[in-house]
Amino acid sequence: MWDRLLTDCHALTMVAAPGNPLGLIRNAAIGIHEGRIVRVGRRTELAGTRASEVVPLGGAFVTPGLIDCHTHLVFGGTRATEHAQRRAGASYEEIARAGGGIASTVRATAAASTTELLEQSRTRLHALMRGGVTTVEIKSGYGLDPASELRLLNIIRTLSRSERVRVVPTLLALHALPQGADRDTYVERMVGDLLPTVARLGLATSVDAFCETIAFTPAETERLFDAAASHGLPVRLHAEQLSNQSGAALAARYQALSADHLEHLDAAGAAAMARAGTVAVLLPGAFYTLQEERRPPVDLLREHQVPIAIATDCNPGTSPLLNPQLAMNMACTLFGLTPEEAISGMTINAARALGMADEIGTLEPGKAADLCAWRIADPAELGYWMGLMPERRLVGGMDA
Amino acid sequence: MWDRLLTDCHALTMVAAPGNPLGLIRNAAIGIHEGRIVRVGRRTELAGTRASEVVPLGGAFVTPGLIDCHTHLVFGGTRATEHAQRRAGASYEEIARAGGGIASTVRATAAASTTELLEQSRTRLHALMRGGVTTVEIKSGYGLDPASELRLLNIIRTLSRSERVRVVPTLLALHALPQGADRDTYVERMVGDLLPTVARLGLATSVDAFCETIAFTPAETERLFDAAASHGLPVRLHAEQLSNQSGAALAARYQALSADHLEHLDAAGAAAMARAGTVAVLLPGAFYTLQEERRPPVDLLREHQVPIAIATDCNPGTSPLLNPQLAMNMACTLFGLTPEEAISGMTINAARALGMADEIGTLEPGKAADLCAWRIADPAELGYWMGLMPERRLVGGMDA
Ligand SMILES: [Zn+2]
Ligand SMILES: [Zn+2]
Repeated sequence: MWDRLLTDCHALTMVAAPGNPLGLIRNAAIGIHEGRIVRVGRRTELAGTRASEVVPLGGAFVTPGLIDCHTHLVFGGTRATEHAQRRAGASYEEIARAGGGIASTVRATAAASTTELLEQSRTRLHALMRGGVTTVEIKSGYGLDPASELRLLNIIRTLSRSERVRVVPTLLALHALPQGADRDTYVERMVGDLLPTVARLGLATSVDAFCETIAFTPAETERLFDAAASHGLPVRLHAEQLSNQSGAALAARYQALSADHLEHLDAAGAAAMARAGTVAVLLPGAFYTLQEERRPPVDLLREHQVPIAIATDCNPGTSPLLNPQLAMNMACTLFGLTPEEAISGMTINAARALGMADEIGTLEPGKAADLCAWRIADPAELGYWMGLMPERRLVGGMDA
Repeated sequence: MWDRLLTDCHALTMVAAPGNPLGLIRNAAIGIHEGRIVRVGRRTELAGTRASEVVPLGGAFVTPGLIDCHTHLVFGGTRATEHAQRRAGASYEEIARAGGGIASTVRATAAASTTELLEQSRTRLHALMRGGVTTVEIKSGYGLDPASELRLLNIIRTLSRSERVRVVPTLLALHALPQGADRDTYVERMVGDLLPTVARLGLATSVDAFCETIAFTPAETERLFDAAASHGLPVRLHAEQLSNQSGAALAARYQALSADHLEHLDAAGAAAMARAGTVAVLLPGAFYTLQEERRPPVDLLREHQVPIAIATDCNPGTSPLLNPQLAMNMACTLFGLTPEEAISGMTINAARALGMADEIGTLEPGKAADLCAWRIADPAELGYWMGLMPERRLVGGMDA
């Protein structure tokens, strides 16, 4: 006797089969017990099964719950004024000189009380959840010193314990060099002081950096990644967003879970990612907000069979994006992904990017019963509407 | 004794004053009685007033309810597959030859039962409402013959009577020429048969056409507009979207409420619109979905002081957009509007585009108490977030 049996639906299991890339089962039923999927099949195949509760879904399409595998959700203030200034023609440099940019978010984050940060972050988290997110990665990174980063990771932990969503915490140890700081001293502090503390307290499950001319060098990134490896923490990397630093290849050398952004990725980087199983996380919300011209090389990723994930990159500076389905639309409209790639990008491949493909990302027996029911007639609609929200969202088998 | 007094809020009244383009009143209170705003002022000024219910809004910003003044919300099917084909490189012509394009929506609309059309339209309408829409214009236009257009207008009327949103029905009499139809016979039918019936039944409050090389000529548009004038119905026009047909100047000659799209508008058109008081309705969702290169000439509109409105253009072919705040973000990000212009574009100027500026669009005594409360710290956030939704939405003074 199972807990629940979902009926009157079509299941997009995301278990690909020949000619059926999304593993679609029409007229499906899904058995759930103790928070896990126990069976997925055609309704007729599950005819003899029994459950405490039968939940008819009115012909909806059921997908795995959406996984937003790259966000900077916890921050103080917004950068709305700066956004308006940029639209009015102010350059990024002018804004930074006037005290804007990431420095302004670091100041606003420091100025906000923990209660305020929790409340503001919760509002954004709820928007993502209403849009279908059942798992969300959240990075620290607006602290820029050990104590402030620890504070942010603790806020992420509090969110994780108080909301019906899986939260995956990442230590973004090298995000930006504070003004006036000595590079070497700063990197040493974050690598030699912050990282071991985070590892000891179990406050993050992976470690991230921003490898870019305006941020940290490949050598500094390697220093961080060596330390992460010595603490048994996997890594991920903001790579090749504004220039080609060969960050993706660097990340692949460390078996990184993901390399993210990738507008300037080259063939060598793509090949290295493929060999290492590193997922390409594309962030169209940032591309759109910055009105970039150079798209990530999607054909190259396809050619090398690098798994492609998509995320909102929810952050105050470059991607104030509150709806995961809109990220899927942007991936299709701006980057030319197919709807199938977009759906995979926020389910199975996002699960891979988090190292959680055994737990979430497909509708398969044994996985967590995290899923969304969508009022659509065709899976392609998930890459088509702008701002669609699921009708129903289950986390661990329960309406959430 | 009023019905309700809203307190603990900041009011964006949209009544411009020198140095205060949005008419912001900080620490405001708003009195509501019998569905109308009776007083807006600083909380301290309203200290002596009494109301049956005091509603504290927790520091929210209150705007007039959002007005979506251009949608094609009622249709059957979707064009999700076509959207995916376009992304994969298929041209508009190839898709049309394969039976796609507007013809496919006309077929799907004809094939859908009235119940199905109502249910599908309601889902989209609810999404817009959750995003803050309190008034929505809906055009017919996927019927392409008198009986089918009347059916759509009746569905729009049913929606209008069953949902907590103001619905403004428009007869889009000349949308597309059905395949194989004789131009002259078709226009005569829509102008001489359909239009008088719609006027007699009171099924629409304005009349629209698509003036474009691929649709109807200026002469055909004039024929429709002459007939509309003889029935006392104001007009609006899809103009200058793909080419310059001098449609905006034509519309202005008929004192049109609005000319919409306008990517190819020239100075003569803008000047004519300014003289006639015709509102420019910009539709960034279509610009985005079609990945157009040519932006509407915003500077020209500013120079001539043409009021600018913004709408979702919600439709299956070129703008499957379900969130009005995202239309505001796109107007800023893609067209370079200021946040102030974006907010005006979905409030006061959208009210003007519907000829309803006496009834809605600002927070002023005497107007309908349609409003939204937003959890933001700065009005500029309304042009910044992607997919924000209001915390609370009132129509006629009641939570809706
Ligand atoms: Zn990021
Ligand atoms: Zn239109």
